[in-house]
Amino acid sequence: MVIDHDFFMRLALQEAWRYQGLTYPNPAVGCCVIGKNNELLACNAHKKAGAPHAEVEALKEAYFALTRDAAVLPLNDAHAIHAYLLAHHNGVFFDVSIYTTLEPCSHVGKTPSCASLIGALGIKKIYVGSNDTNEIAANGNLFLTQSGAEVVQGVLQKECDALLAPFVAWNQKKRFVFFKWAQRLDGSVEGGVISSKTSRENVHAMRAQCDLLIIGGNTVRSDRPTLDARLVGGKAPDVLIFSRRIDFDRTIPLFEVKGRKVFIENTLAKISEYNNVMIEGGAKMFEATKEIVDYYLCYLAPNMGGTQSFSEQKENFEILNLQKDAQDIIMWMKRK
Amino acid sequence: MVIDHDFFMRLALQEAWRYQGLTYPNPAVGCCVIGKNNELLACNAHKKAGAPHAEVEALKEAYFALTRDAAVLPLNDAHAIHAYLLAHHNGVFFDVSIYTTLEPCSHVGKTPSCASLIGALGIKKIYVGSNDTNEIAANGNLFLTQSGAEVVQGVLQKECDALLAPFVAWNQKKRFVFFKWAQRLDGSVEGGVISSKTSRENVHAMRAQCDLLIIGGNTVRSDRPTLDARLVGGKAPDVLIFSRRIDFDRTIPLFEVKGRKVFIENTLAKISEYNNVMIEGGAKMFEATKEIVDYYLCYLAPNMGGTQSFSEQKENFEILNLQKDAQDIIMWMKRK
Repeated sequence: MVIDHDFFMRLALQEAWRYQGLTYPNPAVGCCVIGKNNELLACNAHKKAGAPHAEVEALKEAYFALTRDAAVLPLNDAHAIHAYLLAHHNGVFFDVSIYTTLEPCSHVGKTPSCASLIGALGIKKIYVGSNDTNEIAANGNLFLTQSGAEVVQGVLQKECDALLAPFVAWNQKKRFVFFKWAQRLDGSVEGGVISSKTSRENVHAMRAQCDLLIIGGNTVRSDRPTLDARLVGGKAPDVLIFSRRIDFDRTIPLFEVKGRKVFIENTLAKISEYNNVMIEGGAKMFEATKEIVDYYLCYLAPNMGGTQSFSEQKENFEILNLQKDAQDIIMWMKRK
Repeated sequence: MVIDHDFFMRLALQEAWRYQGLTYPNPAVGCCVIGKNNELLACNAHKKAGAPHAEVEALKEAYFALTRDAAVLPLNDAHAIHAYLLAHHNGVFFDVSIYTTLEPCSHVGKTPSCASLIGALGIKKIYVGSNDTNEIAANGNLFLTQSGAEVVQGVLQKECDALLAPFVAWNQKKRFVFFKWAQRLDGSVEGGVISSKTSRENVHAMRAQCDLLIIGGNTVRSDRPTLDARLVGGKAPDVLIFSRRIDFDRTIPLFEVKGRKVFIENTLAKISEYNNVMIEGGAKMFEATKEIVDYYLCYLAPNMGGTQSFSEQKENFEILNLQKDAQDIIMWMKRK
């Protein structure tokens, strides 16, 4: 195993992908902080819009590793962490390096600017994966360079760009569409619950962040789903039932979720009114939505013995990220 | 991400699993070396019987990281590395810690004892996963403790024991049997080449280390395989064709590989004469061999569109290790 810049950036990437789909409209970002002897002090990620950025989470963790000052630990608000670190850092970050999958932000939005914090803490070396193309937040690299830091750009840039794609779409006022399905190792998608509880909670957390959820009419009829985010106490998205027939039993739970719109349409035109779109479906939906889907998210349970294969069409994917929870494999992919 | 003892042991485990099936009859072992400031100096693994043990590979790598003495780099023989480190270490290891998935060996076999090397280099802290139950090689922990080092046992022991299982079987004079298959994401196993070149080379390297390869008669008839280790220039294993019919076209390449025995039998009794047995097969072989298989190895290509599902029987697996090469997912599993 080679312990180089890529090694640390890969750790940051792996941590960031855990929150892909959960940070919208913010980017999923990961950050490692490395001490003067190349020791890994912290590796953390941005977890949700409004929560501290990855750099702030990692700097908080690194500050505690360097000082054992436990007073920083209960702070969860970005402003509070910024203020605490600026008041108490006492030069501990002077020889520290940072690996961040995205150029540190340079603007004050819901949270203070990461670039200014990094500069004020005296950090002199920053390794960056993707450049920020957001007009407001960009120029963090420039700010840091002008502050006298060395910024090394393009570390695992291709991988970091793949992580950033949903945010880039949002920046360009395009929608981002991802298709989620759960299957067993044998490709089967029917025959009882497939995913672990952790995986299902993860899906509910993503539903809470997307604004439109698309599902096929047959699934609605057969599964009678609720399609909300109850496992995480989140907001339920609007639902588009993609179906030729419009006669649905209105006692199916998804119709009764408060504050949600439900559309029943035989085209996908409705997505033009939404930004972060999640599709949950099987083989038919997969075929019907190929042209509009950006990323695929597959939860694979290491089991066999269900019925009905997900798809029998020829398809090649590239795996963008691979994780494992207590039971399932979680794959983010795109079509080749 | 918590950067603790488990973090470093997990790195050692991940590196070691890359060589599972390739080190027989030696164990697959991984080792991390950590500097006095908790910096990762090296992470390496035992790669093949007769090659240096994981600790020696990692100490060589760490020595270079600490000294930049490039004279150590060309050394690939365990004796040569031992001798060089002992002559040149100059105390650089005094504050170093080691994480090793298996208790360091205490005996001089094909290679010198790791425990004596670790002791002589002045390393004072050793974190160990599994204890060595081999009567000859065991007692490394005791040796190190008596040398004044602190040995912390049982770090991720369950995970380290899973890595060690083939070696434990060998120690107990039991055979180890693993079942390998390649499939696509949709569970399909027919319809052209499935795995990447890297995956296929990996399989050939495993064939070179196993002494018996079992395959089904139908596969032999339809695929006309060679079943050798030509992609890595290795020795071809003996073959057991598991079949009721014994009439095979003897021009099928597997019959023409020199120095190999081929058996055609309708029972699996032949395995009693072998130690490290690999089964390559589909659904029928999977069902027929369930009672004798220890581990399953699945190469999963992120593609769809082949024919014939691997199995339609109900089955639950536990994933022991998950890796990814340039294209495929590689899973070591056991039946639950």
